[in-house]
Amino acid sequence: MAGYFDGIPAIRYEGPETDNEYAFRHYNPDEVVMGKTLRDHLRFSVAWWHSFAWPGGDPFGGQTFERPWFGDTMELAKLKADEAFDMFRILQAPFFCWHDADIRPEGETLAENLSRLDEIIDHIGQRMEGTDIQCLWGTANLFSHRRFMAGAATNPDPEVFLFSAATVKACLDATHKLKGANYVLWGGREGYETLLNTDLKRERQQAGRFLSMVVDYKHKIGFEGTILIEPKPQEPTKHQYDYDVATVYGFLKDFGLENEVKLNVEQGHAILAGHSFEHELALAASLGVLGSIDMNKNDYQSGWDTDQFPTNVPEMMLAYYEVLKAGGFTTGGTNFDAKVRRQSLDPEDLILAHVGAMDCCAAGLKAAAKMLEDGKLEQARNERYAGWDQVQDLLGSDLATLHERALRDSVNPEPRSGRQERLENLVNRYL
Amino acid sequence: MAGYFDGIPAIRYEGPETDNEYAFRHYNPDEVVMGKTLRDHLRFSVAWWHSFAWPGGDPFGGQTFERPWFGDTMELAKLKADEAFDMFRILQAPFFCWHDADIRPEGETLAENLSRLDEIIDHIGQRMEGTDIQCLWGTANLFSHRRFMAGAATNPDPEVFLFSAATVKACLDATHKLKGANYVLWGGREGYETLLNTDLKRERQQAGRFLSMVVDYKHKIGFEGTILIEPKPQEPTKHQYDYDVATVYGFLKDFGLENEVKLNVEQGHAILAGHSFEHELALAASLGVLGSIDMNKNDYQSGWDTDQFPTNVPEMMLAYYEVLKAGGFTTGGTNFDAKVRRQSLDPEDLILAHVGAMDCCAAGLKAAAKMLEDGKLEQARNERYAGWDQVQDLLGSDLATLHERALRDSVNPEPRSGRQERLENLVNRYL
Amino acid sequence: MAGYFDGIPAIRYEGPETDNEYAFRHYNPDEVVMGKTLRDHLRFSVAWWHSFAWPGGDPFGGQTFERPWFGDTMELAKLKADEAFDMFRILQAPFFCWHDADIRPEGETLAENLSRLDEIIDHIGQRMEGTDIQCLWGTANLFSHRRFMAGAATNPDPEVFLFSAATVKACLDATHKLKGANYVLWGGREGYETLLNTDLKRERQQAGRFLSMVVDYKHKIGFEGTILIEPKPQEPTKHQYDYDVATVYGFLKDFGLENEVKLNVEQGHAILAGHSFEHELALAASLGVLGSIDMNKNDYQSGWDTDQFPTNVPEMMLAYYEVLKAGGFTTGGTNFDAKVRRQSLDPEDLILAHVGAMDCCAAGLKAAAKMLEDGKLEQARNERYAGWDQVQDLLGSDLATLHERALRDSVNPEPRSGRQERLENLVNRYL
Amino acid sequence: MAGYFDGIPAIRYEGPETDNEYAFRHYNPDEVVMGKTLRDHLRFSVAWWHSFAWPGGDPFGGQTFERPWFGDTMELAKLKADEAFDMFRILQAPFFCWHDADIRPEGETLAENLSRLDEIIDHIGQRMEGTDIQCLWGTANLFSHRRFMAGAATNPDPEVFLFSAATVKACLDATHKLKGANYVLWGGREGYETLLNTDLKRERQQAGRFLSMVVDYKHKIGFEGTILIEPKPQEPTKHQYDYDVATVYGFLKDFGLENEVKLNVEQGHAILAGHSFEHELALAASLGVLGSIDMNKNDYQSGWDTDQFPTNVPEMMLAYYEVLKAGGFTTGGTNFDAKVRRQSLDPEDLILAHVGAMDCCAAGLKAAAKMLEDGKLEQARNERYAGWDQVQDLLGSDLATLHERALRDSVNPEPRSGRQERLENLVNRYL
Ligand SMILES: [Co+2]
Ligand SMILES: [Co+2]
Ligand SMILES: [Co+2]
Ligand SMILES: [Co+2]
Ligand SMILES: [Co+2]
Ligand SMILES: [Co+2]
Ligand SMILES: [Co+2]
Ligand SMILES: [Co+2]
Repeated sequence: MAGYFDGIPAIRYEGPETDNEYAFRHYNPDEVVMGKTLRDHLRFSVAWWHSFAWPGGDPFGGQTFERPWFGDTMELAKLKADEAFDMFRILQAPFFCWHDADIRPEGETLAENLSRLDEIIDHIGQRMEGTDIQCLWGTANLFSHRRFMAGAATNPDPEVFLFSAATVKACLDATHKLKGANYVLWGGREGYETLLNTDLKRERQQAGRFLSMVVDYKHKIGFEGTILIEPKPQEPTKHQYDYDVATVYGFLKDFGLENEVKLNVEQGHAILAGHSFEHELALAASLGVLGSIDMNKNDYQSGWDTDQFPTNVPEMMLAYYEVLKAGGFTTGGTNFDAKVRRQSLDPEDLILAHVGAMDCCAAGLKAAAKMLEDGKLEQARNERYAGWDQVQDLLGSDLATLHERALRDSVNPEPRSGRQERLENLVNRYL
Repeated sequence: MAGYFDGIPAIRYEGPETDNEYAFRHYNPDEVVMGKTLRDHLRFSVAWWHSFAWPGGDPFGGQTFERPWFGDTMELAKLKADEAFDMFRILQAPFFCWHDADIRPEGETLAENLSRLDEIIDHIGQRMEGTDIQCLWGTANLFSHRRFMAGAATNPDPEVFLFSAATVKACLDATHKLKGANYVLWGGREGYETLLNTDLKRERQQAGRFLSMVVDYKHKIGFEGTILIEPKPQEPTKHQYDYDVATVYGFLKDFGLENEVKLNVEQGHAILAGHSFEHELALAASLGVLGSIDMNKNDYQSGWDTDQFPTNVPEMMLAYYEVLKAGGFTTGGTNFDAKVRRQSLDPEDLILAHVGAMDCCAAGLKAAAKMLEDGKLEQARNERYAGWDQVQDLLGSDLATLHERALRDSVNPEPRSGRQERLENLVNRYL
Repeated sequence: MAGYFDGIPAIRYEGPETDNEYAFRHYNPDEVVMGKTLRDHLRFSVAWWHSFAWPGGDPFGGQTFERPWFGDTMELAKLKADEAFDMFRILQAPFFCWHDADIRPEGETLAENLSRLDEIIDHIGQRMEGTDIQCLWGTANLFSHRRFMAGAATNPDPEVFLFSAATVKACLDATHKLKGANYVLWGGREGYETLLNTDLKRERQQAGRFLSMVVDYKHKIGFEGTILIEPKPQEPTKHQYDYDVATVYGFLKDFGLENEVKLNVEQGHAILAGHSFEHELALAASLGVLGSIDMNKNDYQSGWDTDQFPTNVPEMMLAYYEVLKAGGFTTGGTNFDAKVRRQSLDPEDLILAHVGAMDCCAAGLKAAAKMLEDGKLEQARNERYAGWDQVQDLLGSDLATLHERALRDSVNPEPRSGRQERLENLVNRYL
Repeated sequence: MAGYFDGIPAIRYEGPETDNEYAFRHYNPDEVVMGKTLRDHLRFSVAWWHSFAWPGGDPFGGQTFERPWFGDTMELAKLKADEAFDMFRILQAPFFCWHDADIRPEGETLAENLSRLDEIIDHIGQRMEGTDIQCLWGTANLFSHRRFMAGAATNPDPEVFLFSAATVKACLDATHKLKGANYVLWGGREGYETLLNTDLKRERQQAGRFLSMVVDYKHKIGFEGTILIEPKPQEPTKHQYDYDVATVYGFLKDFGLENEVKLNVEQGHAILAGHSFEHELALAASLGVLGSIDMNKNDYQSGWDTDQFPTNVPEMMLAYYEVLKAGGFTTGGTNFDAKVRRQSLDPEDLILAHVGAMDCCAAGLKAAAKMLEDGKLEQARNERYAGWDQVQDLLGSDLATLHERALRDSVNPEPRSGRQERLENLVNRYL
């Protein structure tokens, strides 16, 4: 049987001037930037769910895609995996990510779910053999099935907590088996539809214990990847507990997990929470919890999570600038949690959406690296705070002393320009 | 000289059927609900800034109000205070709130600012004598003057930190002198306009130290009121550090202040941050940091802080329900951080806006109390979680054990209705 | 076989003090208000799609509901209709609304679609016999099937235009057969996902012609109901052509249809477009195109169309005030384009959600009627414009004359209070 | 006395590789693109209000800027004009825009306002002599003074209508005298704060008559520029009548002015109304009412009108693509309705903000021109609609005929890919 992507050439770097739609214009995997190849900097990952499992539906319409692997059998799940690996090859994508529900059909029972997971993980493991393709992260889908409609770890029904714990245990084992670099938790249903039936305190406690168990189990089995939480403010629920970086940080502090768990920050979720992507990245970095990124974009005119492939290089440059300034990815990477629009029916659409996104990422990262190496922006920032170098003791003082000192010195601060537009011009120079 | 509010009668309770615009229809201060008078439950407070200092301007237009006390002299500041107390009397408002900048004219120097503050505080103290009118909270305006354009505690210029510390020390002293029930910090400029010139980590450290000093000084002088932070996500800055309840909680945890500082939650700021008011209140209560409220509303169709007087009783009922469930106010209260629209030129507008708001609050609180006393909502909520009572040990377990147990028991959770609409109907019964 | 709603009593009016969840507290169908019964004022309608066809899915999760009529056969479609009529009876709902896709299973061909429609329309017609239950409106679903993914009338493929025209012809015939009071068009896919592949001018022309044909056909067959367009700004598409009332009005003017077509205004869609519901209603009324309403609410904290049952009486009062001021409904009515939350699994949820909504509507309308009859609000509004009565000629003049007159009279307008808060207080009196 | 901009060099084009902050990197005024110089394509204009009149205040803080010309005398107004022309020279800006209130101090009376306007217009006229600097448009500020608090043309007080008419007459005369290319109306207060005191129908009638008078007067005096309306959805009012392009179009149709009046479309206002800038431009072009643009940007994370200098070239490219596709500007141009942030205190900030914006515009327009000349995007769009070329008669048919034809032909449309991501990739090639 012919492959779904047959006839689509493997994508190679041809440089910015190429006319070839099936070529990279900016992503040269072997190009070295700041001492590392672009491949190792960017650590691109394809998302199983959006690329292989999503049927093209939306709240007002059904399936538009016709993928040969759609269906509920293990055989089709394996075909899906085979085609996925064909796509990874075409794209030179070094990583992939998955939920259990993306890679195996839903079973009748928990036991069936888990045995199917085992089987498909073995299959995927075989596909990985002899390639450089790796698992960036695995995760459990604890939100699609109706049993999770009122939450997983935070469900009012303890049986759902139990079911979820068993599932996560199995998914963490599976990720470990695939030598995954990270394990992710996204609490799509950990939140509420109405406060009227919700006990916030109780559910927070459940969530905290659940996460602690995950961390403990990771250590128990010797999984060396990073545990990541992916914040999102709402959708599917009215309000999710992992609202944004700052919220998750407070939660981690509460349960003493701030050194155990890092964050997978998504651009679309940043926007839904009222932040810019670079804000969330900079904040996570400043709090020491920046782990990985989901590099997709949301439409600024809609209020929901459109998960589009990124296209705006200036915005992506600012995002990678924060990543590079924080030292670059360690276990993390650039996952495309992005789907082609439901009208983009063809295999070519799937391939070329990734090609365009990879190119934009590469262009953004290279511009960011130039800016960081040039150092002018950091220099301007540091000069702005230079006054503090002379008065290190100020922060160690107390109000009464400072009051006295301010009066004694007749302190009368003179504002200095923040130079925002000049810095914006500076940034544009590197693009 | 005639008083500004001359001719406006003192507002008395006349019951729901009255036709008198100048009467309370729901707020009977002496009415006892859940063992406490409405006066003691609601602890209404008038805000000096919006009611007496705001000239009616907006970004596209200048002053519309013509108050006889507008101007920059101490004499006018005292006239303003005298008229304010006349208004408190008319409204039977038991509390007021102020920034230093609302009550005294800006001086040429820090020293002049502080001596003017002393003088007006004495004047206000005299006005309080022989009345039941009290200070709910005082605060320092660290955002209006151009010296604060880049922040107060988080300014890149340490001189501004110094100036701010001296100012807060004086304002805390002044609040103490007036026997204020709380002291509030709102970081209007503690945030950034552009990340390009901002060092998030450094500024967080400055903010943390500043707050710690405030807490230390409070204890030093024996101030027994509560230190409150008022969260707001943005405006005036692009992004403020005290974004919302969850963000401030994480910050407090970071600096070990979660038992020292509580929150002043404003409806308008909740909405700007993407939350409902009741969400922010319920979250603050569940985290043990609910302190006081700013009861104003924002327009849902605008994205800025309109600070309108509240009018929607069903929404207010949900807010007071969270307050009552958390045990009611201790030092906190209901501050109207609300301004009449800039077309509402007359003294009558100012009075009647408060009358309407107080009435709505009273109606909301009474409905909330009925619902809480009836207990049906809490009962429904508790029943939803009742399954957990049988399995208290679950949260103390570990992933591997739960995995085994789930498989052993073939756990297969059956969803139960969340009954949202029925609970919404129930709520409407108490209105 | 037992009916789905067996055991649920028919809902009767018992008054505000009743404790009975299964009773109306405000909706007494026979109560006369402003010379008309509430039944005739409100003209409640149940929506087939949300109540009977929606499976409870959302973008992150599948079906949660288990209705006995789910499935793709004509037999189940008839069972669905039978249960629907049982629900109408229980609710005393005088009207219902439908899309073709709600009432019959999708066929393999256009011909099959249309013959199934015929068959089910006959069945529904039989169910209507001997009851007072009527059809408020019918409509064609031109957005769910993948053939419509790029639009119906505005599709780049003329075959879709053709398919759509044939379908609408059949649905209009069917509505006519059921003696429907209106026929609605909602252009869920009439818009675009990306401007890059869209020709706005061309698609507008297609839409205009399509609508003109519908109007012509209505006259041809002697359908005396009203043709209605339902505006919505976006979702499912990035941008829809029928954005809001003002946009649709410009479109109707362009094609000379402003006297032929009216609007079905939905609260949720008003909010998504950045307006209040009452704004859209008042604007439609002032332009002479107010037809009918979809009375559901959206969550103010989400940016998508949550289609919840309405609960906030003060907001609903303002909506009905505009309806009553415009003379009340003629062919239009109050359709609940609302769905129970996906966790509300039980038949009781479906019934009681409608009961609560009907009660809120009745309470809102009665308060609105009181306010309108009292006349104080209209009087205040009219007084505000009273100055114009003296200078009727002003609007007939010209700039040069007015310039001269203004200088001659040294015109110097003195602002008067807009009294917003006093009017808000006044409104609250009627609740 | 030294000039405010002394020491700042005139800005020259030095090409993309220059390190000189005071040089254009993309804007070479004499560069010819699609047969026209960039100067003639872009028609840059500096806005008097933001650059020379704005003091740096915001709703939470006062003046931050210290311009030597701030104050209320005619002498300072002339100094302001002199410095403005120095800035135009430095920037090589060919155009400027103004409100009466920007260029002259407010008088005590209408007569004084108008005579001051005369005097300053003469002064500005003299400054223009011997230069190439022209007036892009003039306009009347009918929103800042308290007399306009409830609207100008739509005020409930006819005296304000009169005052406004006289003022607009004078401003149109003044624009005519300066040989302005356009005259703009922006209805900042033409809207409402609350529907409760507003008669939409009456105010629409007033607005329609006012605009008609302006058009008549334009013809009477032989002004050959274009009358432009600038849409904005809200802010300063809760809801403005000139909401967006579609709304204004419906209004123009209503008063028969759609061939007399065009639109000045602002990016920031597009966003506030829920549209992309390119949407508003494409729509205006498709309706034949695209006139001019305000090229500033809004922050996507705030809900208010931040009026920032544009920086994102990919977005600007899409905007200029619509302009070029529509044939380019005739009387219109690129006005920077943008202000430096209030922390950008220095003269250098003002100059360099414009330099960066002009460069981005030039880069955007050049990329757009390349894309248009290359033709691939238009070709792809046209191919998508190619099916219609075979069936021109379809739109002239009727429902019954189409129904018959669809059944006869068993029409069964097969979806084709919309290719969105491929087109997005294509766009990125031209950047
Ligand atoms: Co997402
Ligand atoms: Co994601
Ligand atoms: Co506020
Ligand atoms: Co506040
Ligand atoms: Co809807
Ligand atoms: Co609807
Ligand atoms: Co603007
Ligand atoms: Co503008």
